[in-house]
Amino acid sequence: MSEDAPLSAAELEARLRRTGAERYHNLHRFHRRLHSGGSSYEEVQAWALNRYYYQSMIPIKDATVLTRLSSTEDRREWRKRIEDHDGVAAGDGGVERWLRLTDSLGFPRDYVRAAEGILPATRFAVDAYVEFCRTRTPLEAVASSLTELFSPTVIGERVSGMLAHYDFVSRETLAYFAQRPPQARRDAEWALAFCLANARTRAQQELVVRALEFKCAVLWTQLDGLWAAYVEREPPPGVWRPASWPELPREAAA
Amino acid sequence: MSEDAPLSAAELEARLRRTGAERYHNLHRFHRRLHSGGSSYEEVQAWALNRYYYQSMIPIKDATVLTRLSSTEDRREWRKRIEDHDGVAAGDGGVERWLRLTDSLGFPRDYVRAAEGILPATRFAVDAYVEFCRTRTPLEAVASSLTELFSPTVIGERVSGMLAHYDFVSRETLAYFAQRPPQARRDAEWALAFCLANARTRAQQELVVRALEFKCAVLWTQLDGLWAAYVEREPPPGVWRPASWPELPREAAA
Repeated sequence: MSEDAPLSAAELEARLRRTGAERYHNLHRFHRRLHSGGSSYEEVQAWALNRYYYQSMIPIKDATVLTRLSSTEDRREWRKRIEDHDGVAAGDGGVERWLRLTDSLGFPRDYVRAAEGILPATRFAVDAYVEFCRTRTPLEAVASSLTELFSPTVIGERVSGMLAHYDFVSRETLAYFAQRPPQARRDAEWALAFCLANARTRAQQELVVRALEFKCAVLWTQLDGLWAAYVEREPPPGVWRPASWPELPREAAA
Repeated sequence: MSEDAPLSAAELEARLRRTGAERYHNLHRFHRRLHSGGSSYEEVQAWALNRYYYQSMIPIKDATVLTRLSSTEDRREWRKRIEDHDGVAAGDGGVERWLRLTDSLGFPRDYVRAAEGILPATRFAVDAYVEFCRTRTPLEAVASSLTELFSPTVIGERVSGMLAHYDFVSRETLAYFAQRPPQARRDAEWALAFCLANARTRAQQELVVRALEFKCAVLWTQLDGLWAAYVEREPPPGVWRPASWPELPREAAA
């Protein structure tokens, strides 16, 4: 396959969009439940607690990608992402807005930041994403961000769905999502153009598609963890447990 | 806590055994199902296919630990593990015996070795284990192997349970498990002695416990992935699907 002629830019873009249509996490049962008002308060709490870890690692991921870009212009463009998430001053930035969401859901900030109660599936998936950007080619590192082609749609579904169904979330606590779509579009357009320009052989194009598949799996795996732990109430030992759940016996019967 | 007096060796060992009693994967619903004859043939196939990835990475993990051991005697001891899994010649070793199990379950060896159909949860958890050994202290890297304190028990349950309930497995195809307990005991005794001797402060002892908790999470997360995908039939896009399952439409409705 990698000795085939390269796809045209239009064909590669279509292939990437098809990957999103087949694998992006808006298809996941947890998201359908969350967006349609089917989640309990505790499920929303768990989602936000775990999602914070992912968001808190995005600047780390983006700094890692920055280490792979040898062009000043490329780094100048990519640096905007770190600024979006870390902000320009105290109280600014996407990471901070996620903390306001977890604040509103009753979590102490120290607990959220320490990531003590998160699922191992969350940690392993997110850490795999950073490691991917550290060890794969720069093209793949950039390509792994291409889920942002699809995020404006899911953000729209999420904001309208959650505002409509959960009286415990407000437009203010969902502020991260309101700010994100124009940034995501800008980032996705740049990353797509980068990949179309730099993936010149069929083999490189396959790597771009695989990188997007990988990133879709990073997002999907996190929701799988949430479903088992908080919808089915079969959590791994040691993770956050809602106060409403029964206490565990000190030592489980072996 | 880390300024408290260190635990005695007996107290630390008891703490580690309690961690196993609370977190080891013999407690997982997938294992209870597998060992009691409740798994379908396809679930056993999926378990073996995914488990192969973990086993195939154990020599990589052990070589990684080897890079962290500065004592010739320690490395000489740890090297035995690589020999157990990779063997002394073609056709020998634990990894090869897992391939005989996947052979017996109908998988082509190239497919199994390429790890094409495995769950992302498997890959992320296993890769996290290798990365842990690469980046944490040598003490933590050794401590992460301490689940071998508990494996002889689960291996006993597994072999007797699977032989009793599944006519498609034989003692020969479960040969890996028959050979493993004495090796696991030898390895676990050495690793426990290493940890008890080298974890001198309370803080170091806490790291040893955390490393074992981490490893338990690596094993648990893999079974969570199998449960969602193959017991509940809610797999992530792109993984192995049994032939008996319906074909997917080419593009899922978004």
